[in-house]
Amino acid sequence: MITETRVDAETGEWRLSAPRRAERPDDARPTSVGCPFCPGHEDQTPPERMRLPAGDGPWQVRAFANKFPIVSPAGTDGSTATGLFSRFPATGDHEVLVESPEHDWDLRFASTEKALEVLLGLRERARALAAGRPAAVVVFRNYGAAAGASLRHPHSQLVALDQAPPGLAARWRLARGHYADTGRRLVDDLAAAERGTGERIVADNGVLVYQPYAASVPQQTVLFPDDGRGSLADATDDGLAAVARTLPALLRGLAEVLGDPAYNLVVHAGPSDVDARELARWCQWHVEIFPRTTTFAGLELATGLLVNPSRPEETAPELAKAMSAAGR
Amino acid sequence: MITETRVDAETGEWRLSAPRRAERPDDARPTSVGCPFCPGHEDQTPPERMRLPAGDGPWQVRAFANKFPIVSPAGTDGSTATGLFSRFPATGDHEVLVESPEHDWDLRFASTEKALEVLLGLRERARALAAGRPAAVVVFRNYGAAAGASLRHPHSQLVALDQAPPGLAARWRLARGHYADTGRRLVDDLAAAERGTGERIVADNGVLVYQPYAASVPQQTVLFPDDGRGSLADATDDGLAAVARTLPALLRGLAEVLGDPAYNLVVHAGPSDVDARELARWCQWHVEIFPRTTTFAGLELATGLLVNPSRPEETAPELAKAMSAAGR
Repeated sequence: MITETRVDAETGEWRLSAPRRAERPDDARPTSVGCPFCPGHEDQTPPERMRLPAGDGPWQVRAFANKFPIVSPAGTDGSTATGLFSRFPATGDHEVLVESPEHDWDLRFASTEKALEVLLGLRERARALAAGRPAAVVVFRNYGAAAGASLRHPHSQLVALDQAPPGLAARWRLARGHYADTGRRLVDDLAAAERGTGERIVADNGVLVYQPYAASVPQQTVLFPDDGRGSLADATDDGLAAVARTLPALLRGLAEVLGDPAYNLVVHAGPSDVDARELARWCQWHVEIFPRTTTFAGLELATGLLVNPSRPEETAPELAKAMSAAGR
Repeated sequence: MITETRVDAETGEWRLSAPRRAERPDDARPTSVGCPFCPGHEDQTPPERMRLPAGDGPWQVRAFANKFPIVSPAGTDGSTATGLFSRFPATGDHEVLVESPEHDWDLRFASTEKALEVLLGLRERARALAAGRPAAVVVFRNYGAAAGASLRHPHSQLVALDQAPPGLAARWRLARGHYADTGRRLVDDLAAAERGTGERIVADNGVLVYQPYAASVPQQTVLFPDDGRGSLADATDDGLAAVARTLPALLRGLAEVLGDPAYNLVVHAGPSDVDARELARWCQWHVEIFPRTTTFAGLELATGLLVNPSRPEETAPELAKAMSAAGR
């Protein structure tokens, strides 16, 4: 079944209608019995697309198509319509990358080497998906049921979208506009401004870690590696290594200050159908973490206005302290 | 303390920074002991702004300022800035309307008369807030902890915003554009198109009840009263009565098909600083209910693309059946 993109005539927003997603297993239990992501259950997943290390031995990282995809490669039964009931097929690709053979492991416990292995795996799969020149390759990690994770076994996901949704297009438009106006990258100017005030900086040792000025949730945190590339697919080894050195301690710090919160980790990146050199002029990949300890409500649904019951100037020092302790 | 609106330089979206909200009581327990909204505890709320019936007798509906406001009337200590760290004071007003003296009551159990009393109370307070000519008066009801309700005692909220957030402005722009292009109201054309296909209609008896084509969550449902007014403040008695006859049975139907779900109820309306006659040309108030049985995740945060694991064509008939049974 081809999933469908529907355009909301009242807001212009896109919604994916993906009925098969409702059939997903809902298994956040801390047991590996029956877990399709555990070693020995490889036959329960769609065909393997990558394993690290390569070869026939035991794997440490493993990627395959998502069994309940949000988007799927173009078929023949998708239909298109315009007007008030506008729609088009939701084409693309949706992958799972299992980060470890261990069911109860978590990324926050990773050594730098292990975190780098996961990031290298994600870069390899992002490159493979980007090779088809979709509009976007979105990489993310959902941790905990409150963040939408339906399986506990540690994993990330990659989604290649053949069309860029309005929210993503708006983000790119602002970054391109800033470059057109100033000749500089918006993310660089933001990083410089954060370093200038210092009040929202969590760490700045190889990767700038800060809490954004207009954070929408408590302890929302950005990791900005200064590697000058526009997408994860183009990331340098040095950029990945810098994130690998920082991310586990940051996740331990968040677990400390918020009590092992659910969170979404998102890798922001530019379009995949633009030349890498051109892209890097106005865009730089970076990581953002959204802890899920708050709930949006009616006002947010009616207006899009998100209410943050905290200030990043107050939460960043807490996280800096916890992260520093966690790093030791 | 003045709450602050911050503009996200990377997305253009607005975030309210409202630190006092974190001090809210979190009491969803089914006990009235210590509930500030229960009769006898009136001294625990800010000063009363309305009670129904008026006078000194026992109240059935009672309104007062929110003790933990998202926005507040303009003071002198709000500051404004532009550039990457753009901000301005989040001014406006935030009210609570307690719908019943009974702690364990719910709107789905309301008689038509009682539901009308609540709606008349909301209209009266919406009128009072609109009299100050804010940009918008947003009326909503959060039900259940998963929908952001921090207190169980049944209540609605009204928020007057002196500036319209980008998401709300975009919604109005589309409706105005449709009117400019066609001379018709977008909501009327949507209602006619829904009646034309019929496949997403839940009920159509005085109020059109349907599930939107581009629904973002399962069982998302619109109540469209054909009263020709642009805002709740201007709603006709007949329009309110029609909603009062339908809403409780609809809520009972949702409780039946989803197992008493958390939900947000939102009253969509046009700007409050536009003449009512002019507004009614392109805009019509209506109610939308968003059950909160799903969780958005990393893809949604990265792209704004919402994934609905169901189709309204499949869920609308279920709700129609349950609502019909609940109405008897």
